[in-house]
Amino acid sequence: MKGTVLHGPRDVRFEAVEVPSILKPTDAIIRVAATCVCGSDLWPYRGHWPTPEPVRMGHEYCGTVVEVGDAVTKVKPGQFVIGSFFSSDMTCPICLSGYPSSCVDREQVGAAQAGMMRVPLADGTLVATPGTPPAAMIPDLLTLSDVMGTGWFAAEAAEVAPGKTVVVVGDGAVGLLAVLSAKLKDAGRIIVMSRHEPRQNLARAFGATDVVEERGDAAVARVKEMTGGLGADSVLECVGTQEAMMQAIRSCRRGGHVSFVGVPHEVKIDGQELFFSHVHLHGGPAPVRRYLPELIDRVWNGEIHPGKVFDLELPIEDVAEGYRAMDERRAIKVLLRP
Amino acid sequence: MKGTVLHGPRDVRFEAVEVPSILKPTDAIIRVAATCVCGSDLWPYRGHWPTPEPVRMGHEYCGTVVEVGDAVTKVKPGQFVIGSFFSSDMTCPICLSGYPSSCVDREQVGAAQAGMMRVPLADGTLVATPGTPPAAMIPDLLTLSDVMGTGWFAAEAAEVAPGKTVVVVGDGAVGLLAVLSAKLKDAGRIIVMSRHEPRQNLARAFGATDVVEERGDAAVARVKEMTGGLGADSVLECVGTQEAMMQAIRSCRRGGHVSFVGVPHEVKIDGQELFFSHVHLHGGPAPVRRYLPELIDRVWNGEIHPGKVFDLELPIEDVAEGYRAMDERRAIKVLLRP
Repeated sequence: MKGTVLHGPRDVRFEAVEVPSILKPTDAIIRVAATCVCGSDLWPYRGHWPTPEPVRMGHEYCGTVVEVGDAVTKVKPGQFVIGSFFSSDMTCPICLSGYPSSCVDREQVGAAQAGMMRVPLADGTLVATPGTPPAAMIPDLLTLSDVMGTGWFAAEAAEVAPGKTVVVVGDGAVGLLAVLSAKLKDAGRIIVMSRHEPRQNLARAFGATDVVEERGDAAVARVKEMTGGLGADSVLECVGTQEAMMQAIRSCRRGGHVSFVGVPHEVKIDGQELFFSHVHLHGGPAPVRRYLPELIDRVWNGEIHPGKVFDLELPIEDVAEGYRAMDERRAIKVLLRP
Repeated sequence: MKGTVLHGPRDVRFEAVEVPSILKPTDAIIRVAATCVCGSDLWPYRGHWPTPEPVRMGHEYCGTVVEVGDAVTKVKPGQFVIGSFFSSDMTCPICLSGYPSSCVDREQVGAAQAGMMRVPLADGTLVATPGTPPAAMIPDLLTLSDVMGTGWFAAEAAEVAPGKTVVVVGDGAVGLLAVLSAKLKDAGRIIVMSRHEPRQNLARAFGATDVVEERGDAAVARVKEMTGGLGADSVLECVGTQEAMMQAIRSCRRGGHVSFVGVPHEVKIDGQELFFSHVHLHGGPAPVRRYLPELIDRVWNGEIHPGKVFDLELPIEDVAEGYRAMDERRAIKVLLRP
């Protein structure tokens, strides 16, 4: 069997790896129907996170269960399932309070950019679709494994609600799906910060009402101008850089809500500025598992098509080209078929 | 007339100042019944905030209206009133959304450590008591001008609710009244971080169930031990230092709520740590004005006695001794009578 391995900066190889097997009685093995490259995969790819030894890549997946451990009782071989990038038992107090991505028993789910993969805590982590999905639905379902659930969390954590004015900082796949999520939550106005025309177009298709091309202080000034000098009710930070975080906090009205859902990279928030900004701030690894039942339903019913963020599809053998296309921003998000 | 003036580090004088007068038609002039020294007054007093020129001090006050400007229609001479440290119009969108301390028309209210003072935007800023209060009630009412309202905001911003486990970081007057506020909101368990016996005793009198004397990582470890390894539901940071902020974030369970209500002094929050802590973070200048009607009611009915935080009372002429007593932590909070 072959899988995706990162050997060092910009050195991704599809090469021989061990076939995954049940290591714990709570595990399941899945035949991967589709996987993809995440914005966060680019941090180690670009060398911003060190890779001291070769590392298996991929944490977004959906597919068919082929084997389960002895302690797995809900998930059955043959089911089509989707899971999150963190495993969760769904029984601990943190899971029960709605934060399965911080489950006390969580493990990082990895090695998904391959034909087969192991998923820990299968009964908690995986959610089965009502049946075998048609091929055309697979990209939509795949997004629920991370990027759509993360956009949805961005909207929830920033308390997007009917009629509110929303700003989305970032036009990557998460930002675009944060726009879609804000639209599904009936936001009154959705301002996306983007300077790339194809991404602006997709944002508008997902429900954005306004585009701000400025960055930094100029972007903040534009938002203030558009909101009677006050700032937006909800600001969704979907990048993870210092500039994006400050742009988000400064674009928000006092007493408003800022969410941040991309892993922050060298971000420091000044306590005194945050204090006087008066915003609510909430973020973290999206509790994607919590949203799976509802979002699967919306995809299954044809209500949403988050898979539109995939603008490049490759056979998994060409995974290295997928990373390159995303690194060079030639693609918004790359779908890989084993 | 005399008032309190800070000339430089640890140089507070009660000296001749101008008699306040109506500067804008929305102003009121108050004869101050009682005022006090705030923890935040100690920042400039200690020289941590620069004082390039002499500055009038004091922002906590209650007293009797003696004069109002032409545009003031609700507040009347003769009324006993309490106001916040920021003026507010109570009509702008930020006030209407519950954040009068970030009112778009706000001014800092100052020069309260004196016999008379000017209050801007009097109709919005001031709330009258149902009648002239008995002398014994004045300390309780005075706390509503800042310190009790700030403790109350700490509890609200950290979403304290019946049965929750709460940690209060800080045993200053705000921390102690945050304990009282958590008790009034029916918290199940209230853990106060304090190593000063008189403050521990007052905290217990206000409703604290547990005291943690450790600091830093050891304090966090104690809280984890007391909460099944998870951390507290709500953590109220009432200090404003880096150590207190990190102690608060690390003492909170994932998905829990951290509030911070003391002006942060050289605090930097690491984005990645905040991300993986998964907490909600909210703070800022307490919207004290929002709480005045409810809290006046509770004091008027004799339900609460937040004035217990005053453990030293001085004639205002001795204000310099009041600052010294708080600086040296000989007093929790000093009440000054003009």
